[in-house]
Amino acid sequence: MSRFLSRHGAKLEPYVPGEQPVERRYIKLNTNECPYPPAPGVARLLAEQKAREFSLYPDPEAKALRQAIAERYGLRSDEVFVGNGSDEVLAFIHMAFFDPGDSVYFPDPSYGFYGVYAKLFHLNPHPVPLAEDFTVTVEDYLGVDGHILIANPNAPTGLALGREQVERIVQSNPDHLVIIDEAYVDFAGDGVTSLPLLDRFDNLMVVGTFSKSRSLAGLRLGYAFSRRQHIAALERMKYSFHPYNVNRFTQQAAAIAVRDESHLRQVVGKIIATRERCYRRLQELGCKVLPSSTNFLFVSHPVLKGREFYEKLREKGILVRCFDHPRTLDYIRVSIGTDEDMDAFLGAVEETL
Amino acid sequence: MSRFLSRHGAKLEPYVPGEQPVERRYIKLNTNECPYPPAPGVARLLAEQKAREFSLYPDPEAKALRQAIAERYGLRSDEVFVGNGSDEVLAFIHMAFFDPGDSVYFPDPSYGFYGVYAKLFHLNPHPVPLAEDFTVTVEDYLGVDGHILIANPNAPTGLALGREQVERIVQSNPDHLVIIDEAYVDFAGDGVTSLPLLDRFDNLMVVGTFSKSRSLAGLRLGYAFSRRQHIAALERMKYSFHPYNVNRFTQQAAAIAVRDESHLRQVVGKIIATRERCYRRLQELGCKVLPSSTNFLFVSHPVLKGREFYEKLREKGILVRCFDHPRTLDYIRVSIGTDEDMDAFLGAVEETL
Repeated sequence: MSRFLSRHGAKLEPYVPGEQPVERRYIKLNTNECPYPPAPGVARLLAEQKAREFSLYPDPEAKALRQAIAERYGLRSDEVFVGNGSDEVLAFIHMAFFDPGDSVYFPDPSYGFYGVYAKLFHLNPHPVPLAEDFTVTVEDYLGVDGHILIANPNAPTGLALGREQVERIVQSNPDHLVIIDEAYVDFAGDGVTSLPLLDRFDNLMVVGTFSKSRSLAGLRLGYAFSRRQHIAALERMKYSFHPYNVNRFTQQAAAIAVRDESHLRQVVGKIIATRERCYRRLQELGCKVLPSSTNFLFVSHPVLKGREFYEKLREKGILVRCFDHPRTLDYIRVSIGTDEDMDAFLGAVEETL
Repeated sequence: MSRFLSRHGAKLEPYVPGEQPVERRYIKLNTNECPYPPAPGVARLLAEQKAREFSLYPDPEAKALRQAIAERYGLRSDEVFVGNGSDEVLAFIHMAFFDPGDSVYFPDPSYGFYGVYAKLFHLNPHPVPLAEDFTVTVEDYLGVDGHILIANPNAPTGLALGREQVERIVQSNPDHLVIIDEAYVDFAGDGVTSLPLLDRFDNLMVVGTFSKSRSLAGLRLGYAFSRRQHIAALERMKYSFHPYNVNRFTQQAAAIAVRDESHLRQVVGKIIATRERCYRRLQELGCKVLPSSTNFLFVSHPVLKGREFYEKLREKGILVRCFDHPRTLDYIRVSIGTDEDMDAFLGAVEETL
């Protein structure tokens, strides 16, 4: 290792992203990407974009994009922060609001990055075990002595808290920021997003991404919604780190994507229909499957352990994700692809079992 | 301000980027962008790129891009780190190698972000005043007790140290990382880049950007070159912050740009020719101009203060940059545009004086 590593740098436990294979063509159901293309306007943007404009820096304020997002979500643009993917947004939230030694509460298991950030930013992490049935226990988060970070719907379980449950958590922690990471919320139906609570609570921040329902994982766009004073704090952090964090092309493509509501509805509708069909079929095949509010399924089988299941499917050209966490050793997480992808997956499962 | 601001967040002194006007059309000579389009292959990429590929995450290792950069610079790809602009690369360098309280030495004035990072990362900053003639005094950096960060060529002065001067600094600080920020090095001619020193010194890191000579400021791509163990430390930091930091489109466009050596030479040649012509003409008009190794000129006039000069030009539709730093109050910094842009600029200067 580098002899110049900081104490800070030496203690990291980096996140391990899902495989991004380049050689063999897999049916890729391992990183919860969208199997459908982004809004058709993005293809038109490619055709119309002038390469010469790339020589100019992007708008560091991302005004047009923030305005477009604000309009879609019924907010003002100073209530919207945008970043180079929601990972960057989460990192900036940690830097702007959390001090070394602060306690942070998050579900366990959940998105693996929350623990990584706790290490990186010298926090005092409180991973809160999920209940036996993998649900988040609201009572565990009432009146706690630290920041709260909850993925809702949660990953890798796919389960969601209802809005009124989130409300209880937000209400009972008025002196701490509650961050709800809604990466998968578009697949959850009504009654899950905490967006309507922003009006009433000034200690809530909602985080989202264009990587799932809007098919733009490759272009990197994440966001945070909150009161404007909290958004201003994120902006200050950004201007102390790198002001031009969202590139020109992504700003334009994301603005187009967020305006195309009918494309979003169509994509989400297709994925939910495919998900429900797979959910039923996997049960028929003897799997245990959690009801999903996301674009993935969390699946186990009485006989096959998660890693074994993963390996059998990989041999058949299908990539899913398995886990090292003791609570999820028995499980695989399967992203919802096209109906064709999922027929191949279901066929492979049937052969395997 | 947000009531949830961290102590950390409260102490920031964010960077102020140059104006990015959206309303009126200015001749924009204020942020050292390239007035020429990127390599023609980038336009072809726009035409050929399929929007549907944007639904997939980018390669977090950016293998193809790092390989292309490595080939161009005679390195191995594990000696190359890429980031979302060189600002992000610099931020990751601070996080990976510098601890709170560490001393960091950098020229003053120089790129304003070095002081911003010192605040953000709780360092002990040692801004080292430039000599009377605005050169970096090598002796000030020999055997110091901290990290060293030098823009070479320097901004906003445009002056460069020769490679043997950088070598003296690197050699006399074997136990500290010396970071040379070469954002403008392509405009400096031979004998400036520290790249050839990487073979001999394991305490050197060279940082660069595609925002200047390669006309890709809008797409965001910065890099660092160093021994592979130091690059591995940056990778670990990236995987603890956001692994997908360089988006798909930028990875492809930058790989195309770095392979087009003849386009680079042509662009750099044009800018240097325009720069030298403007340099002479400004002197004829009674300005003091420093000899430039960059794509900008650092200019003063016996009568007009920097801000006044800036404002007069702005009224005439020409944006340049002026400064609040006591050492540079008398100066403006003028990016080199096309010959047409610069004729308009020179005409406006003539009218103003």
